[in-house]
Amino acid sequence: MSQTPTAISELAELLARLPGIGSRTSRRLVYYLLQADPEYCSSLGEVISGLRQRVRNCSICGNYTENDPCELCTDPRRDERLLCVVTSAADLMALERMGTYRGRYHVLGGLLAPLDGVGPEELRLGELLKRLETTRGLEELILATPPSVEGEATASYIADISRGRVEKITRIASGVPHGGELELSDPVTLGRALEGRRSIKYVKS
Amino acid sequence: MSQTPTAISELAELLARLPGIGSRTSRRLVYYLLQADPEYCSSLGEVISGLRQRVRNCSICGNYTENDPCELCTDPRRDERLLCVVTSAADLMALERMGTYRGRYHVLGGLLAPLDGVGPEELRLGELLKRLETTRGLEELILATPPSVEGEATASYIADISRGRVEKITRIASGVPHGGELELSDPVTLGRALEGRRSIKYVKS
Repeated sequence: MSQTPTAISELAELLARLPGIGSRTSRRLVYYLLQADPEYCSSLGEVISGLRQRVRNCSICGNYTENDPCELCTDPRRDERLLCVVTSAADLMALERMGTYRGRYHVLGGLLAPLDGVGPEELRLGELLKRLETTRGLEELILATPPSVEGEATASYIADISRGRVEKITRIASGVPHGGELELSDPVTLGRALEGRRSIKYVKS
Repeated sequence: MSQTPTAISELAELLARLPGIGSRTSRRLVYYLLQADPEYCSSLGEVISGLRQRVRNCSICGNYTENDPCELCTDPRRDERLLCVVTSAADLMALERMGTYRGRYHVLGGLLAPLDGVGPEELRLGELLKRLETTRGLEELILATPPSVEGEATASYIADISRGRVEKITRIASGVPHGGELELSDPVTLGRALEGRRSIKYVKS
């Protein structure tokens, strides 16, 4: 439409490129911004345009940070004996929200996917091996890649190359999620739930 | 969480203020922006922060525009005989997308809502009356406020103050929407559909 002001159509097009935002939502957002507090509008814009300058990847764990090394790597209260390998910074944040894990992290930056051209060189595996060598007191490497085909393959690959370099290598549990229905679970999930069964400890009365 | 970099948590908070975007979606958007093309990121930020400087309201119709008066008001091909009153610029755009209306518009900037403190002075009604006086050849004033309580009240109010100043005052039709089910329509909509019925013209075979 020729009568849409350029700034409006430009912004609507840019917003529509974001995941989960279609052309209707993006137009609604533009109209919201046009009526919102102008200060909100300008600070939102400034934070977005400055984001990539302010945030970089931690040279140790690979997580997003404003200071290198990041707070998680420099925090002396974190447990040096545990190192948890995750796919992405978003997965790391999900684990941190849980609030109970107190060890360190290593962000891979993806999963092995040979068909999509993602080989071991594309992931932060050299950095991982170096950490295994240099971290004093490391006892356990926890592989927290997702329980998908790529996630399992990547976990196996890491277990292979790490063997002999760390005492214990573990894999996160896979099974029926909290609140999930057995009836609605897929056969693979059910198979894993059964395979990963643990004995219940009875407390004698 | 102390370990979230400030830029990330800041942006996540700002994005979560947008309509329809909760804290999960906003975090997902931040991670998307961190991995997206840095140029996309900076142009999105710049367009957002510059939006309120670039876009203003047209002094004639009240629509958003970069040039005052706007393209719709200056386009000599638009029909001066028709003036369509709409609630907002977003409603104007919806009518324009339809592509068949060729008259002019007048944006009210809201609807009468005495309980929320929106009286006639808060809407662009003075400007409307001035246009009714000065527009040469005006024949019809179309009231396209929504068929809600406030929309109907605003339409009645405008019809009242415009009486005698324009030949014909009309109200958009209200009824069962295209593709809508009678079974699922509310009684008010059905009542309006029946009340607004039109005779069908037979073509004799």
